[in-house]
Amino acid sequence: MTYELVLLRHGESEWNAKNLFTGWVDVDLNDKGRREAVHGGELLAEAGLLPDVVHTSLLRRAITTAHLALDVCDRHWIPVRRSWRLNERHYGGLQGKDKKQTMEEYGEEQFMLWRRSFDVPPPPIAEDDEYSQFGDPRYAGLGDDMPHTECLKDVIVRMLPYWESDIIADLRDGQRVLVAAHGNSLRAVVKHLDGISDEDIAGLNIPTGMPLLYRLDDDFRPTVPGGEYLDPEAAAAAAAAVANQGR
Amino acid sequence: MTYELVLLRHGESEWNAKNLFTGWVDVDLNDKGRREAVHGGELLAEAGLLPDVVHTSLLRRAITTAHLALDVCDRHWIPVRRSWRLNERHYGGLQGKDKKQTMEEYGEEQFMLWRRSFDVPPPPIAEDDEYSQFGDPRYAGLGDDMPHTECLKDVIVRMLPYWESDIIADLRDGQRVLVAAHGNSLRAVVKHLDGISDEDIAGLNIPTGMPLLYRLDDDFRPTVPGGEYLDPEAAAAAAAAVANQGR
Repeated sequence: MTYELVLLRHGESEWNAKNLFTGWVDVDLNDKGRREAVHGGELLAEAGLLPDVVHTSLLRRAITTAHLALDVCDRHWIPVRRSWRLNERHYGGLQGKDKKQTMEEYGEEQFMLWRRSFDVPPPPIAEDDEYSQFGDPRYAGLGDDMPHTECLKDVIVRMLPYWESDIIADLRDGQRVLVAAHGNSLRAVVKHLDGISDEDIAGLNIPTGMPLLYRLDDDFRPTVPGGEYLDPEAAAAAAAAVANQGR
Repeated sequence: MTYELVLLRHGESEWNAKNLFTGWVDVDLNDKGRREAVHGGELLAEAGLLPDVVHTSLLRRAITTAHLALDVCDRHWIPVRRSWRLNERHYGGLQGKDKKQTMEEYGEEQFMLWRRSFDVPPPPIAEDDEYSQFGDPRYAGLGDDMPHTECLKDVIVRMLPYWESDIIADLRDGQRVLVAAHGNSLRAVVKHLDGISDEDIAGLNIPTGMPLLYRLDDDFRPTVPGGEYLDPEAAAAAAAAVANQGR
């Protein structure tokens, strides 16, 4: 038995384009992001990799990406599951801040530490910060799980229970699973699947709008390490561009 | 305890505008229909009637209506449930046919019988008809439940099990439920809720894109018979227009 998992990072958002730290701030896709989502769905259709069920975060940019991609490949009707555990990394006090300005203010070393270190979170966000999500009804049930900031390690810790329970359950059921989510929640999935070290994950970038297929064996290990992009050349070029963000 | 249910009929589709019988054919909303969906969501926000969970049919025009309405009222993240039991009435052999032409061909009496009688279905569709849904993967599990044609009575019979199990379960759980669906599947819900007779249901039209609120008592009976449109004047005008379709 081979299980099929497709990861799809949302397309460009209004804040990606403005180069702001977004995290849990619920910004929308821009027109380019919408086109990326549609293109992602076209790639799924061309590859014959039509999803049977979709999992999304609770953030609009992932939800709309899933809607647009599934609509264009005629899979708009499949079951939908959502979880805050697939949300983007919470960027703490950096949410809403300009990336370039933050780098100038704190220096490149600190900036890269916050962006790419495995276990150094940005400063926590104040609960009354205009870019905090405290009081947002969608997180009302989280209690102490509600983050004030997160490093990638934190994302893995809160993502894994959802992987182990909900996503694996659908895979085991023979469903082709689409996960429409974010740069860091998908890096958390990929790190887990490919057994990437805490050091090496820093260098891994997942491009937007490019479906990434993992075929998994009986133990839910990838048959092809790193998975397979449905459009490998475009994915390599896009990953390089992501790595240069904020420079 | 009062339960809150909001019904929302999808906005204008490409085939509504062309005056074709649609049924289970999975046509998209047109631009007017998209605007109607957004307006429906704005009305929900203005009334403070934000849904906690949404139920849709398996048809694109209802799914996209839900997506657009929920996105604009910032409820895009709520749980989604879907069922073929909320689909539009299957229009049998009339699917894809022009309404005006059908009326001229068969006469107004037969035409109105197919459109509005409680228990006279249109002729069945051939399984290999270009507008049939046999072989569509979303209905693969239906077996003998897969309709070849339906009258309103048939719609009620297949809708009610979903009402009794899934929708009532969410209401009982204290959730404000949005049902985004179709003219006839929503008439089936309304007939059940308001105890409308088989004769009187013929005269009931539900306008597109106008949220219809039902507050239900402990026995899931409406506290206000007929429910309350969030925009009553516009709803009355729209219902009158629907009644004249095909004339």
